[in-house]
Amino acid sequence: MRYALLVSYDGTEFGGWQIQDNARTVQAEIESAASGLFGVPVKVRGSGRTDAGVHAWGQVCHFDAETSIPAERIAICLNQRLPSDVRIRKSAACEGFDCTKGKEKLYCYSFYAAPTEIPILERYAVRVRRTPDLNAMNAAAKELEGEHDFKAFCASGSSAKTSVRRIFEAHVEVQTFFEGTMYRFYVSGAGFLYNMVRIMAGELYEVGCGKPSAIQTAFKTGQRSCLGDTMSAKGLTLMDVRYENSPFQTK
Amino acid sequence: MRYALLVSYDGTEFGGWQIQDNARTVQAEIESAASGLFGVPVKVRGSGRTDAGVHAWGQVCHFDAETSIPAERIAICLNQRLPSDVRIRKSAACEGFDCTKGKEKLYCYSFYAAPTEIPILERYAVRVRRTPDLNAMNAAAKELEGEHDFKAFCASGSSAKTSVRRIFEAHVEVQTFFEGTMYRFYVSGAGFLYNMVRIMAGELYEVGCGKPSAIQTAFKTGQRSCLGDTMSAKGLTLMDVRYENSPFQTK
Repeated sequence: MRYALLVSYDGTEFGGWQIQDNARTVQAEIESAASGLFGVPVKVRGSGRTDAGVHAWGQVCHFDAETSIPAERIAICLNQRLPSDVRIRKSAACEGFDCTKGKEKLYCYSFYAAPTEIPILERYAVRVRRTPDLNAMNAAAKELEGEHDFKAFCASGSSAKTSVRRIFEAHVEVQTFFEGTMYRFYVSGAGFLYNMVRIMAGELYEVGCGKPSAIQTAFKTGQRSCLGDTMSAKGLTLMDVRYENSPFQTK
Repeated sequence: MRYALLVSYDGTEFGGWQIQDNARTVQAEIESAASGLFGVPVKVRGSGRTDAGVHAWGQVCHFDAETSIPAERIAICLNQRLPSDVRIRKSAACEGFDCTKGKEKLYCYSFYAAPTEIPILERYAVRVRRTPDLNAMNAAAKELEGEHDFKAFCASGSSAKTSVRRIFEAHVEVQTFFEGTMYRFYVSGAGFLYNMVRIMAGELYEVGCGKPSAIQTAFKTGQRSCLGDTMSAKGLTLMDVRYENSPFQTK
């Protein structure tokens, strides 16, 4: 029987989603919990990797197992075996479901402008020194929408076959607070390249600070160097993975 | 010369603001940084204590020192000596200022309703199991406003001379997200008793879940037992301390 899990995690103490030597990973924690629960080795497949330090609100994974535990109770049983920085929000039986075949992913990149770091913001957002212009960032975000060759928005070392991707929607929201401003860059697409959202966020910030957008040039030339710096992992959260037929009742 | 500091901290790894044996404290960290910077022992006075695990967005403290460092540069110098979970947001010269004589403090208590813990919310908010009614909580919050004897809203062990306090304003804001709701209880007052905001938050939550408000009874009888449970420290943040004449240019 196949089961799907809806997973949240704090990426701070992880070397990313995918199992690797010499690093604590979310995938390994879930495989260990599932193997312990079912008494046999369990392999867990994720919708995609998240990098070291990246957080998840709604990552999705699946695995195959034989068990008499009711599907919706598996989440509770796994949570009893998982460390507190990983939580299974839902579990569901889902014969035929493949978590790698999502139709859409939604990411949020958070950064805040303040004169000094605010410790209670630092874990999930990146501080920037200047206060970027929201309208300029949103105009640039619109340029990202649609199907483009995002080769310039990809860190070297990617093994993707093609760098053409479709972005469904991109915008920046703002929230002001005592002496500072929090920016949330939301971007949804059919798929993302390695570091793509973090490079997008860096370019939007620089455009917000007055740099002319290099997004069209980046699409044409594929040159990484025309875009702003890659923003750091801790500001990035995988919010949601959407499917034609979600195994979870509500999204 | 007297200097004032505007301080933010993540309370998770602290035994509270006030210096004590066998616990890491914010006051001790700042005294250590200031003593190192000025080369003589420096005593730092805070606007008030915060308990173990409580966070601060804008705590205020002061100290006396002789230095040629420009007042506004002291923040930068201290930050170089402080651990990353404490940050001085501003420093100012303030002859005659006493940080303990604030006219108003603003606290925020954060809790969220969700079927399971969300790891990226857990550090600064408390998960509750039921989804409380916002209108019921706000009606109860209004009962807290004004001058009352808050004896019932005080944990035992308080050394306060009187339990009469004035609450200026209290309300709950709500923010919905994927499959959950975040509640932020804001309360401002001239002063607070030990655990007072956390007891208020617990009562508001229970009223939101359908319990009749016990706030008037608590005022009349002074009985702690008629109110809801004390909510845990990690959801509480000291947002701001306000003065007749703030030593900082903007608040």
